[in-house]
Amino acid sequence: MFSITVRDHVMIAHSFRGEVFGPAQRLHGATFVVDARFTRAELDADNIVVDIGLATSELGAVLAGLNYRNLDEVPEFAGVNTSTEFLARHIADLLAQRVHAGALGEGARGLSGVAVTLHESHVAWASYERAL
Amino acid sequence: MFSITVRDHVMIAHSFRGEVFGPAQRLHGATFVVDARFTRAELDADNIVVDIGLATSELGAVLAGLNYRNLDEVPEFAGVNTSTEFLARHIADLLAQRVHAGALGEGARGLSGVAVTLHESHVAWASYERAL
Amino acid sequence: MFSITVRDHVMIAHSFRGEVFGPAQRLHGATFVVDARFTRAELDADNIVVDIGLATSELGAVLAGLNYRNLDEVPEFAGVNTSTEFLARHIADLLAQRVHAGALGEGARGLSGVAVTLHESHVAWASYERAL
Amino acid sequence: MFSITVRDHVMIAHSFRGEVFGPAQRLHGATFVVDARFTRAELDADNIVVDIGLATSELGAVLAGLNYRNLDEVPEFAGVNTSTEFLARHIADLLAQRVHAGALGEGARGLSGVAVTLHESHVAWASYERAL
Amino acid sequence: MFSITVRDHVMIAHSFRGEVFGPAQRLHGATFVVDARFTRAELDADNIVVDIGLATSELGAVLAGLNYRNLDEVPEFAGVNTSTEFLARHIADLLAQRVHAGALGEGARGLSGVAVTLHESHVAWASYERAL
Amino acid sequence: MFSITVRDHVMIAHSFRGEVFGPAQRLHGATFVVDARFTRAELDADNIVVDIGLATSELGAVLAGLNYRNLDEVPEFAGVNTSTEFLARHIADLLAQRVHAGALGEGARGLSGVAVTLHESHVAWASYERAL
Repeated sequence: MFSITVRDHVMIAHSFRGEVFGPAQRLHGATFVVDARFTRAELDADNIVVDIGLATSELGAVLAGLNYRNLDEVPEFAGVNTSTEFLARHIADLLAQRVHAGALGEGARGLSGVAVTLHESHVAWASYERAL
Repeated sequence: MFSITVRDHVMIAHSFRGEVFGPAQRLHGATFVVDARFTRAELDADNIVVDIGLATSELGAVLAGLNYRNLDEVPEFAGVNTSTEFLARHIADLLAQRVHAGALGEGARGLSGVAVTLHESHVAWASYERAL
Repeated sequence: MFSITVRDHVMIAHSFRGEVFGPAQRLHGATFVVDARFTRAELDADNIVVDIGLATSELGAVLAGLNYRNLDEVPEFAGVNTSTEFLARHIADLLAQRVHAGALGEGARGLSGVAVTLHESHVAWASYERAL
Repeated sequence: MFSITVRDHVMIAHSFRGEVFGPAQRLHGATFVVDARFTRAELDADNIVVDIGLATSELGAVLAGLNYRNLDEVPEFAGVNTSTEFLARHIADLLAQRVHAGALGEGARGLSGVAVTLHESHVAWASYERAL
Repeated sequence: MFSITVRDHVMIAHSFRGEVFGPAQRLHGATFVVDARFTRAELDADNIVVDIGLATSELGAVLAGLNYRNLDEVPEFAGVNTSTEFLARHIADLLAQRVHAGALGEGARGLSGVAVTLHESHVAWASYERAL
Repeated sequence: MFSITVRDHVMIAHSFRGEVFGPAQRLHGATFVVDARFTRAELDADNIVVDIGLATSELGAVLAGLNYRNLDEVPEFAGVNTSTEFLARHIADLLAQRVHAGALGEGARGLSGVAVTLHESHVAWASYERAL
């Protein structure tokens, strides 16, 4: 099994609802350093998993939709706790759509899975992985 | 599949028995930077894998039992090579007990696995993962 | 010259005023991984710069005043761009007060300087250093 | 499941063929920080996965065959795009040969898999994993 | 004293002349992870050292002149050992020119110094710092 | 001003005397990830600060004297708190001796300073710098 991973980041504000979150129920924020991993069983005709340049630019495009935003005011997230793990799935799902739409190149249709990790600090991170 | 990971560290002394260990047969020590990863198939009612605050405090509680100790003098480890990989399992098993005892919250009973990685330096680390 | 550095982090929301900030004029947020470095010319009677445990707990106490807050609503910061470099000075000044108040121990009165670095992502950070 | 991972690095020149590579079609180079992970279901008689010292020296021996070379001139790679993911497999396969030849010790014959990750920068890396 | 630092990277091929370089006399390559630090005594009217976005784009522009190149064939470097420390100075000098030309904004004319660090691996890096 | 830095590590056991150390008064241990930085005003005839290979091997030779040892039993350290900052100076002084003895090459006699940083965990480190 092969994979490539690219890294970018996003800076957002949000708050949580639920006693378990303690002081994080207040409006606060986070930098998420985001790793997107793409996997496949065999390399494509160019001997790669997917073009690292395209993977990087598509991850950037997905993150641009979140960057410098207060997630509490994003209609799509109304009533949702935008936890680190929830956002990992959100980003992975958007990347999957782009793979299926051909945005990562025709060869990328051979990808078998995508995993997204969001580092919220040097001591905590969350991941979500799914099939393509 | 979702996961969250939290990081802490512990500083211990120990020695090894067996020619394979060379100079590490002498009493020496290590800082282990410890990553504990918790996994589950679906998020809980709060949209999380497990509370990162609770995960961090429980990992800290488990490590407190090892911290600033000479493992050669811990009765539980008598006659055992307390290798990095052995300690990864030891910590994972203690975290599993705490999950089962409800210490990570009722929602944490939906966790499916735990993995522990101990970084013994910038160039070597060991992991153990198990089901819950 | 000797120094010790300890690391912690803080998660905040804020916005900026000024065209130079582009989309960061919107309410967003950041995780700041914070390094506090203490310097002195000679070690104290215990052969240390300052107790790492005390330095860590005092840094944590200073950061608690910022953590999980929207800095736009903190009266002390009214009308101020709470840039990464501004916050580095803010934290350094609070640490200096604590050193002078004896909170880092009597030996810490021999410290000559403090420097604070805030990492806002894996690709950008800011620092401020001052005498004590 | 247990694993240990060791890290080393290699510095090479190469070029790529194919439009997808853009400016990387020119002769350029890379530092690859290389992580080799060895896995097994149970620890051996010494309570380890494999000796970290041996794993490190064998990884170093494999990398010595690539280090400070222009891969475009290595006969074995003639006509091949020596992508990061391709090199991850190349190194994993050479490590597998060494495990089978007994170079990592008799106990290492109980290893079940090897995975190799090559970090080409702070924002991109590739992996290959295989059974032993 | 304040500073901000931004990070990018560049991938090049080159060779060295001189016995001290041993096998690095052969054509090989490197990824340099490049940190550019800008310093000044007081913050500007926006409460910053220099705009992090501009600093990042200007660093990227400087690195674009080196990226994916064989430095042995760059006329400007003819007969020169393009060591990590030499390249740190080269990049710092180009950044200094851009500061003086106003490319980092009018406020950046208040900068007092620039320092550039090139990480050639996880175990070696070089720096150069100069006044502005 | 130019510098190069090389990294290695050492694993030791020790204990501290003095109430300030709390539980660290017990025999415990640490991995120290050690960075040695060498500085000079101008590059040498080979266009370098000092040979990175020689700097790495000399740092390794200095650390070999400490590695896998219980520092409480090293006669040279009798009655001394072998704090992280103390060890940083100890290692810097040994490197300075080697520079003066010519072990880092004749060109290294032009070095102006050495600084040593010991990372005792991901959240604490200590440094010592001196002239040569």
